[in-house]
Amino acid sequence: MNDQNTIERWDTFEFSLEGPKTSNPFSDVNFSAEFTYQNRQLKTDGFYDGDRVYRIRFMPDMTGEWHYITKSNVPELDGQQGKFNCVPASERNHGPVRVKNTFHFAYADGTSYFPFGTTCYAWAHQGDELEEQTLETLSKAPFNKIRMCVFPKDYIYNKNEPVYHPFEVHENGHNNLERFNPEFFQHFEKRVSQLRDMGIEADIILFHPYDRWGYCDMNAEEDYHYLRYIVARLAAYRNIWWSMANEYDFLLDVKPMTHWDRLFNILEEKDPYHHMRSIHNGDSAKAYDHTKPWITHVCIQHSDVAKVTEWRETYRKPIVNDECQYEGNIPRPWGNLSAREMVHRFWVMVVKGGYAGHGETYMHPDDILWWSKGGVLHGESWQRIAFLREIIEDMPKDGLSPMVGSWIWDQLAGGINGEYRLIYFGEHQPAEWAVGLPMEDGEYDIDLIDTWNMTITPIDKAPLPVSPPVRKKKTDKQIVKPKPEAAFGVRLPGKPYMALRIRPKK
Amino acid sequence: MNDQNTIERWDTFEFSLEGPKTSNPFSDVNFSAEFTYQNRQLKTDGFYDGDRVYRIRFMPDMTGEWHYITKSNVPELDGQQGKFNCVPASERNHGPVRVKNTFHFAYADGTSYFPFGTTCYAWAHQGDELEEQTLETLSKAPFNKIRMCVFPKDYIYNKNEPVYHPFEVHENGHNNLERFNPEFFQHFEKRVSQLRDMGIEADIILFHPYDRWGYCDMNAEEDYHYLRYIVARLAAYRNIWWSMANEYDFLLDVKPMTHWDRLFNILEEKDPYHHMRSIHNGDSAKAYDHTKPWITHVCIQHSDVAKVTEWRETYRKPIVNDECQYEGNIPRPWGNLSAREMVHRFWVMVVKGGYAGHGETYMHPDDILWWSKGGVLHGESWQRIAFLREIIEDMPKDGLSPMVGSWIWDQLAGGINGEYRLIYFGEHQPAEWAVGLPMEDGEYDIDLIDTWNMTITPIDKAPLPVSPPVRKKKTDKQIVKPKPEAAFGVRLPGKPYMALRIRPKK
Repeated sequence: MNDQNTIERWDTFEFSLEGPKTSNPFSDVNFSAEFTYQNRQLKTDGFYDGDRVYRIRFMPDMTGEWHYITKSNVPELDGQQGKFNCVPASERNHGPVRVKNTFHFAYADGTSYFPFGTTCYAWAHQGDELEEQTLETLSKAPFNKIRMCVFPKDYIYNKNEPVYHPFEVHENGHNNLERFNPEFFQHFEKRVSQLRDMGIEADIILFHPYDRWGYCDMNAEEDYHYLRYIVARLAAYRNIWWSMANEYDFLLDVKPMTHWDRLFNILEEKDPYHHMRSIHNGDSAKAYDHTKPWITHVCIQHSDVAKVTEWRETYRKPIVNDECQYEGNIPRPWGNLSAREMVHRFWVMVVKGGYAGHGETYMHPDDILWWSKGGVLHGESWQRIAFLREIIEDMPKDGLSPMVGSWIWDQLAGGINGEYRLIYFGEHQPAEWAVGLPMEDGEYDIDLIDTWNMTITPIDKAPLPVSPPVRKKKTDKQIVKPKPEAAFGVRLPGKPYMALRIRPKK
Repeated sequence: MNDQNTIERWDTFEFSLEGPKTSNPFSDVNFSAEFTYQNRQLKTDGFYDGDRVYRIRFMPDMTGEWHYITKSNVPELDGQQGKFNCVPASERNHGPVRVKNTFHFAYADGTSYFPFGTTCYAWAHQGDELEEQTLETLSKAPFNKIRMCVFPKDYIYNKNEPVYHPFEVHENGHNNLERFNPEFFQHFEKRVSQLRDMGIEADIILFHPYDRWGYCDMNAEEDYHYLRYIVARLAAYRNIWWSMANEYDFLLDVKPMTHWDRLFNILEEKDPYHHMRSIHNGDSAKAYDHTKPWITHVCIQHSDVAKVTEWRETYRKPIVNDECQYEGNIPRPWGNLSAREMVHRFWVMVVKGGYAGHGETYMHPDDILWWSKGGVLHGESWQRIAFLREIIEDMPKDGLSPMVGSWIWDQLAGGINGEYRLIYFGEHQPAEWAVGLPMEDGEYDIDLIDTWNMTITPIDKAPLPVSPPVRKKKTDKQIVKPKPEAAFGVRLPGKPYMALRIRPKK
């Protein structure tokens, strides 16, 4: 048994016991532990990690003394007790991410978390050299979430065999779905913990349809078995998010809706920390019913980012458009956005009170596309996403709410957070503007933001633009009063992809 | 009585009679004529044109001998007979525009007509100097349709008093709605006929809500009276289209839906030539029910041009998005598109089998904005619209049908006309492409079109891009066959706003 006497809050407490030799330790042996903090108890499953090693991982969420006792159907693993002292989190450890204020996120310690994610589906299957390059790239990139698959991926530009397979592989090449490959998971966990140390949430994709090895064809019990195993291994990492599937709807012929619901129930049952839970759609018309109670936030694939207001109203949960298409040049319509359009979609999503996901799919002589394998970034959107992230993190805390109630905000993106306002014009290029600016005069700092050239320039108030016309209505014989106008206007350069930031003077 | 013995087919035959002095010749006198061609009869109303002159206009649609006889409730105007010989149209006279092949248009002589319209709402109210400049601009621009209001317009940037008023104006400044001002209409008709001679269709807006003179508040009978008068005056011009209203829904408080329907019935009853009939909406959620039988084509105001496929399916009529917002820089979201975005919207509309309308709203020191007053063009979209028009007119005749049946064509714009294909990539920038290209090999001319830089470059076939992945389905134990791929692919520059044209070699 390992001896961790103290552990940081939200770090992973871990110990192992030596167990018996059985014909299949992955299924023959039940092993779990109950952790106690004062009068509160949490139960966590252990897992077999090869070489007769049975392991328990636990993430304490309160400082102070925790006690535990193991339970097992084999005597060597049963009734083992211990305790540890949980100490305050260190500076860079903010705990797991939770939903905050219906549409936004915060770490468990209350620090705001604004997701600016990217996608590298199979990066953890590429071997150390490329994987380390990916980590190096991530260390300089703005991304604080990454979507990544557990299972190896078979898809265009991703035909290479993975270094590790999640299951034991028979000599005939078939998976033995009853036996996991601990080496695979140890490697995967190493990557997850490296992301954690870099402050990046690992949005773990548990199932996906890009398969030549037979993972799609696992039956219901095999899926449950796999899910319990990975939860036992990974749930104690604070940076885990559960993405039940990528493009789940492309699997509906073999995994019907009731099956997905049951899988979510297993997550609810087995993950004592209730990490973020979502599911990703393929066909934009086949979004999962994200109102279901186990869904913590809406993961969506949709190219029409203007719909974010509608999704907020429908689901009343945080909206993350994890796939609003990718910057790149491959011959698939989802993989060849211009960098400018990728940046545009981020701005619309964020200013309207949602979040977006990045991906990059530039053709490469060795098929090393960031979206699938990682490596280096070739595009021009990531720097602008970094710029946007800085602006958002510089905001008063909590996220933006869309400006609504006027068709203008269907055309433009306007967001508000208290007195802070961010208005994004996209392909619009007004030379002056007033709508959506503060209704009462006062001292404001007004900045013109060039979202592509990444400049922020203070600008002055200007005389108000002309009011909209008013038609006399016959029915009431009265002049219709114009809608109240902003207290001031601004002059703008008449160029597209500009934004305005309005803040009360400090 | 004038003596026109011969008249070109689809030109305006006109004669006048001197009538009695009455207290109100606009309402006291009924005056009409019946035109006979072999066994066929057409009835047209005459109108009072001031100075005791009563006039009949008629547009013959068949060559050969026509006879006519007048009818009136006053003896001087009743029973007058005459005849004329209709001769073949001259080279530039193709007759009025009609619907062709459900979604497209052609002139009466069968020549294809692809609308590339613009909007100058109040250009005919600006006085000769500016109006002549507008005509001069139009003579160099690509536009073959113009939206223009009968009534003067009161709106932002359009506060000047018109030169002519459509009704007699009392000394107290009020309109006498019972008496038209022939001078106004003579002037308006002069502009319409100048447009005709330039090959430009006049999309006449009969009602609109931008009003300070009281036109909005005319009662039902006054509306009918006005409509009959203008039809009597204008219907015999072959280049007339009837746009019942601009933003009709902003008038619903004073003119309910049944009123609009009745007005359309009057057009059907009174216009013997059945010119094109449409109506324009304000709120994009309040489109008129364009399935109504009197609507010949869908006039729509909507910024989301990707919806054209949906509109085609809903209405089964030609789609003209006459207001997909305007190029400009004014502080209204509908009036500050970048030129690039305006051009982009044209391409999407046209390639998906619809048509778009142009407008330009750049701020001007004297408030001379093209969209309202005409003058000169300041923008950069009109040249690219000219380029697009050339490409479309160079196509095998009839318009494009959208490529459908695949979500790819919701993302991109692809159109087909027989073997001719036009694929528009918009903000997408693939480095190679195959989807939507011909399914069987053969001799094709393939052109890369740069929609912004206005270049057309022949390119070669290239090896096919990789096929989409195929997942083995458990349910049927069979490999799903990939969808048939194109017979060839092409390499592209990986830049946005490109298009591909594929034509069988001549």
